[in-house]
Amino acid sequence: MAVTIPDKLADLLTYDKKAFANLALTLRDSTPQVTPVWFDYDGEHIIVNSARGRVKDRVLSRKPAVALAISDPADPYRYVQIRGRVVDVTEDGARDMIDHLSEKYLGKPYPFYRGETRVTYRIVPEHVSAMD
Amino acid sequence: MAVTIPDKLADLLTYDKKAFANLALTLRDSTPQVTPVWFDYDGEHIIVNSARGRVKDRVLSRKPAVALAISDPADPYRYVQIRGRVVDVTEDGARDMIDHLSEKYLGKPYPFYRGETRVTYRIVPEHVSAMD
Repeated sequence: MAVTIPDKLADLLTYDKKAFANLALTLRDSTPQVTPVWFDYDGEHIIVNSARGRVKDRVLSRKPAVALAISDPADPYRYVQIRGRVVDVTEDGARDMIDHLSEKYLGKPYPFYRGETRVTYRIVPEHVSAMD
Repeated sequence: MAVTIPDKLADLLTYDKKAFANLALTLRDSTPQVTPVWFDYDGEHIIVNSARGRVKDRVLSRKPAVALAISDPADPYRYVQIRGRVVDVTEDGARDMIDHLSEKYLGKPYPFYRGETRVTYRIVPEHVSAMD
């Protein structure tokens, strides 16, 4: 069951805000991992992008539960915590998606592409708690 | 086996930097949770503080594996990812510790104390990866 982001913190997910998401995963040995990542939000899914074969890809491709903490770059006491699930994993359009994310954060197409197979993961928020 | 923080990113853990840690846990159902938290570093342990009975306390008191992502507030492309383990859980000095953390981040003793039993958790970094 998807949940919506509270209006008062919805700005944190916008393209213009350029906030990072701290994406937490559970590794195969049940220990957690967390990394700051680029993301986009389509109003329903949190969208992230990685490359085939990386740790993040190997975990996310199993469509696991994930968590994200997204803080306002201008005020760390404004943040949303999201727990949800990967519902879609695809290579379709994933090269375009990394360019789209790079435009958001760097203002230009992804400059680090080295021929790797890009993958896009869509996450449905199932629990959201907000602090502001 | 504790590991050290790379010199080039050691500033992220200093008191003056006031960086937040995004602390990731594995909940009892194996799903992850991540929240931004205050922390201190004593050269060996990452130190965080919570209160008895909270979700974080219930998980951390089992001395589990945890992960942290700590980004430079001034440059999100400088960050350390830490995976480690809670090695010590104590109420001793935990009221003083939350004041110490509050002094770091707010410049004054913890203003939100409401009689709860504070708890301090010490985390040993076991794996560190750095991006700068």
